[in-house]
Amino acid sequence: LSYEESTSAGCAQISLGLKYDATEKCFTVFLLQLSSCTTFSLPADQKIHVRVAVLPCSETTRCLFRTTGTLVRDTVNLNEVFSLHMSYSSLRQKTLRVDVCVTSNLGREEGLAGAQISLADANYSGERCTKCYNLLSHIYMPEITSK
Amino acid sequence: LSYEESTSAGCAQISLGLKYDATEKCFTVFLLQLSSCTTFSLPADQKIHVRVAVLPCSETTRCLFRTTGTLVRDTVNLNEVFSLHMSYSSLRQKTLRVDVCVTSNLGREEGLAGAQISLADANYSGERCTKCYNLLSHIYMPEITSK
Repeated sequence: LSYEESTSAGCAQISLGLKYDATEKCFTVFLLQLSSCTTFSLPADQKIHVRVAVLPCSETTRCLFRTTGTLVRDTVNLNEVFSLHMSYSSLRQKTLRVDVCVTSNLGREEGLAGAQISLADANYSGERCTKCYNLLSHIYMPEITSK
Repeated sequence: LSYEESTSAGCAQISLGLKYDATEKCFTVFLLQLSSCTTFSLPADQKIHVRVAVLPCSETTRCLFRTTGTLVRDTVNLNEVFSLHMSYSSLRQKTLRVDVCVTSNLGREEGLAGAQISLADANYSGERCTKCYNLLSHIYMPEITSK
């Protein structure tokens, strides 16, 4: 293995299903599984959860969801589902942000890594569209942090 | 228009083309166009540029690129192309971050909004795949900022 391949082999991923029901005007996010969580280098008794945000938030709809915390394992089965009521034209203006988080001893939520999915070309017509997304560590976003 | 539709109608977007040439092991990002830039509410003499990062960075390949600065207009034609040499297995571990930035009077780069594209399912076999991505304002990522 080259340097590049050996270091990037363990990229954490999240498996997500997305669905839009045009009749019910309902957008559903299926949180399925986290994989390669050992790349987070967390202690075995650490709980992690996933925070889901559909952004920008509108004032009329709930846009933030959290899974229940589970002990970190290399593979974590999430099996949680969140739904939002939204018109299709609104949906296509949104971006889905999915972040793996821990809660510190002081009760503060800290994001470890995340995926961001533009819904501009959302076309989940009745069918659930399931995909794996690489989770980008927040340490790679220093320029946002330093703003 | 409902409140939600009227406020989200002007979501800024970037049009990108992505291509992977398996023979040359070359990943190419075509920066095509920014649209609805008036949502950034910048003065007319403000220059903006786009920063492209293929993350995580490997030590052996350049991973950060910037377009030349152009005056902000509602629609900005970028027409710049960046290429990286990378194996297909490495590419699929990467995340593409594309941010619209300004340079402040003090010469400091500030990100305004961005898209993040997981390359886990990259399948741009020889053909350029062109899509529009919503740009999520950095103000929606306070939890990353506060880390």
